[in-house]
Amino acid sequence: MREGTNRVEAFSDGVFAIAITLLILEIKVPHAGPEEHFWTSLVGLWPSYLAFLLSFFVILVMWVNHHELIRMVEAVDYPFFFANGLVLLTVTFVPFPTAVVAEHLNTPEAGAAVAFYCATFVPNSLSWGLLFYTIHRGNLFKEEVTPEEISRIRGSYAVGPAVYLVATAVAFYQPWLGLAINCALWILWVRLCYRSKTVDAEMQRRRTTGHHRTASQG
Amino acid sequence: MREGTNRVEAFSDGVFAIAITLLILEIKVPHAGPEEHFWTSLVGLWPSYLAFLLSFFVILVMWVNHHELIRMVEAVDYPFFFANGLVLLTVTFVPFPTAVVAEHLNTPEAGAAVAFYCATFVPNSLSWGLLFYTIHRGNLFKEEVTPEEISRIRGSYAVGPAVYLVATAVAFYQPWLGLAINCALWILWVRLCYRSKTVDAEMQRRRTTGHHRTASQG
Amino acid sequence: MREGTNRVEAFSDGVFAIAITLLILEIKVPHAGPEEHFWTSLVGLWPSYLAFLLSFFVILVMWVNHHELIRMVEAVDYPFFFANGLVLLTVTFVPFPTAVVAEHLNTPEAGAAVAFYCATFVPNSLSWGLLFYTIHRGNLFKEEVTPEEISRIRGSYAVGPAVYLVATAVAFYQPWLGLAINCALWILWVRLCYRSKTVDAEMQRRRTTGHHRTASQG
Amino acid sequence: MREGTNRVEAFSDGVFAIAITLLILEIKVPHAGPEEHFWTSLVGLWPSYLAFLLSFFVILVMWVNHHELIRMVEAVDYPFFFANGLVLLTVTFVPFPTAVVAEHLNTPEAGAAVAFYCATFVPNSLSWGLLFYTIHRGNLFKEEVTPEEISRIRGSYAVGPAVYLVATAVAFYQPWLGLAINCALWILWVRLCYRSKTVDAEMQRRRTTGHHRTASQG
Repeated sequence: MREGTNRVEAFSDGVFAIAITLLILEIKVPHAGPEEHFWTSLVGLWPSYLAFLLSFFVILVMWVNHHELIRMVEAVDYPFFFANGLVLLTVTFVPFPTAVVAEHLNTPEAGAAVAFYCATFVPNSLSWGLLFYTIHRGNLFKEEVTPEEISRIRGSYAVGPAVYLVATAVAFYQPWLGLAINCALWILWVRLCYRSKTVDAEMQRRRTTGHHRTASQG
Repeated sequence: MREGTNRVEAFSDGVFAIAITLLILEIKVPHAGPEEHFWTSLVGLWPSYLAFLLSFFVILVMWVNHHELIRMVEAVDYPFFFANGLVLLTVTFVPFPTAVVAEHLNTPEAGAAVAFYCATFVPNSLSWGLLFYTIHRGNLFKEEVTPEEISRIRGSYAVGPAVYLVATAVAFYQPWLGLAINCALWILWVRLCYRSKTVDAEMQRRRTTGHHRTASQG
Repeated sequence: MREGTNRVEAFSDGVFAIAITLLILEIKVPHAGPEEHFWTSLVGLWPSYLAFLLSFFVILVMWVNHHELIRMVEAVDYPFFFANGLVLLTVTFVPFPTAVVAEHLNTPEAGAAVAFYCATFVPNSLSWGLLFYTIHRGNLFKEEVTPEEISRIRGSYAVGPAVYLVATAVAFYQPWLGLAINCALWILWVRLCYRSKTVDAEMQRRRTTGHHRTASQG
Repeated sequence: MREGTNRVEAFSDGVFAIAITLLILEIKVPHAGPEEHFWTSLVGLWPSYLAFLLSFFVILVMWVNHHELIRMVEAVDYPFFFANGLVLLTVTFVPFPTAVVAEHLNTPEAGAAVAFYCATFVPNSLSWGLLFYTIHRGNLFKEEVTPEEISRIRGSYAVGPAVYLVATAVAFYQPWLGLAINCALWILWVRLCYRSKTVDAEMQRRRTTGHHRTASQG
């Protein structure tokens, strides 16, 4: 039924999984002297831990969004491959600004580093908008997807670039506030839950109509 | 039938596979002088080999556990994605404490390094518990899964954090004993084999009822 | 139906996904002094960004081509595995010439570095030709694939090595022109769109004959 | 039908794909002075290129073998997971001896480095034997797999450890001869082609009985 999206899902899952796992390579083992400094050096890596956590979370949120979006797609075409590739490009780029933030968060350049981090999500959110537009224009959504759902998704995508721009501007003067705005957007995305209600309902129906062999015994 | 879990399995498999393979990057090629020292320098990497073996084993055990747990799951929902993401976060973190142990195991800081290693499995085991709780609360288990099985799994998850805390405390004074307690828990996990007996039985039934085209010729 | 190609697709998707994601590791965090130099040092990485973009794009184009080619394949055999492996070998090699270009693009060795970059695509395009030949000779194409399509693909593969050789020769004297010729070929590949019209038509037919349960309500 | 092996295939494919792609990270960009030395420094990396090619080839051969072996497997059980994990452990280890060879092949330590490289394939071939034994003892083979095929595979696995031991011993005195013996074994593996004739025949039958919708028009 969804054969058309199988391989693009596999490739995208691979890229998301690798990008999210490569983040750990940016946390370098500290080299301390006598034992009492061992914990100090580990604790001194807190900017790396924080950057790791933030970027892990945002890539996870994006993977969930990708998963939900593709579930609403019936088949893929050529423009889809390249719009999807653009999203993946901005995802694979995440480890670099993450490393920049990790190295500068406890230096005087924290503001510039966080601004750079926030700024890299502007093209990311634009590429999500392009992917959505490509799916919509190519008539690739499943028939169950209602115009209301499509309007709702379009609305939530429109917010992204604006919030990231604000976060970037704020970060120059208040790096922590900039980071907080960024994270607030991600948490918003989690709450938006734009998953297809129709598809969920269909799955629910299948669960309740006893497609399990053992359902009658349950 | 299990369509709902396909992509979360693919993504999780990717993260497990990458985390387990990245471990080898922590073993650096030694640079020795004349030939007689070549083997000495290779042998001198034993803490790296040991840390590699331990972490490979624990990620493998976790992948098997993940595989068995997801086999019992009918469908996934939003909370599941993030509880599962938390498990993956603690799995992708493993290469870092592994590298810390590898660099300090034959130094005076061995105790602290092993304690750090053991301590990082406390959040890991808590995240497994959260994932289990999310599946249970979301009513995501297959109908074949019996309350007895669910009780058994809950019990085995409850043991984890306690044992890791003990291993951490012991490691400060006896690093090797701490590592041994850690490994004992992993071997216990292997033995627990909480795989769904019901699902196995179903698979067995299908094997014996001759679903192969060539079964009658066998 | 296409069971025969499932695992070779999974393995190939993995290699493509990893090769495309490893590219980011070549962009190293710059170490600047006072804050005014932070942006200068980030901007100074432009050869790395450019090489990253180019190589991301070419691996994406190759993945799309691989996807389209395998869609036309019914089953795989031993020679296919090794011809496909040769393609993957040249894909996994891409991060190395990419790093060479990134480090030399703003040095006097730019010409030689770009020539090396272009030259590495000669064996790549030859391996695609070998893969095509292996599929054709092994009679592995689906029955829907017409001789016209096969002729068209053969023609587009024949162009590759020649263009890459020209780009290599030009790059010695005009590195930017050499890069431009390379990219022109990739854009040409995107336009060629050799996807199986027959397979597409079949998918279209299935979409319009209402295989969705909810199609009648749509 | 082969549901039981789906996820272990996905995980194994991931590990193979990552191990084979990480090899490129061992080839470091050379830093030459004036332009005439650019090519000299690139050519001077020949031990890295050679080690990359050899290890890419052996991991590809192993992936093909894994693919063929799992095709003959009906379902997986707990011992299978860990025997398969042991094979993957020795596969993920390959990048390390590869890097050792690459750094020492044009030094006086070439003999020792190649001996180490060959020696690491002894546990690898033993782990393949254990995997085979686990499948056989667990009665996991498909019913179509004949005793003759099983005998043939067992025979080819028995050869591996012995040849690797010989290659290791020879490499101390004649590194190139040791490498040649190693490669000869890999080429032998390719020729052995222990793929299930029965499974192939079944696939052939399905192809010829017109399971394509469009077969009658072909």
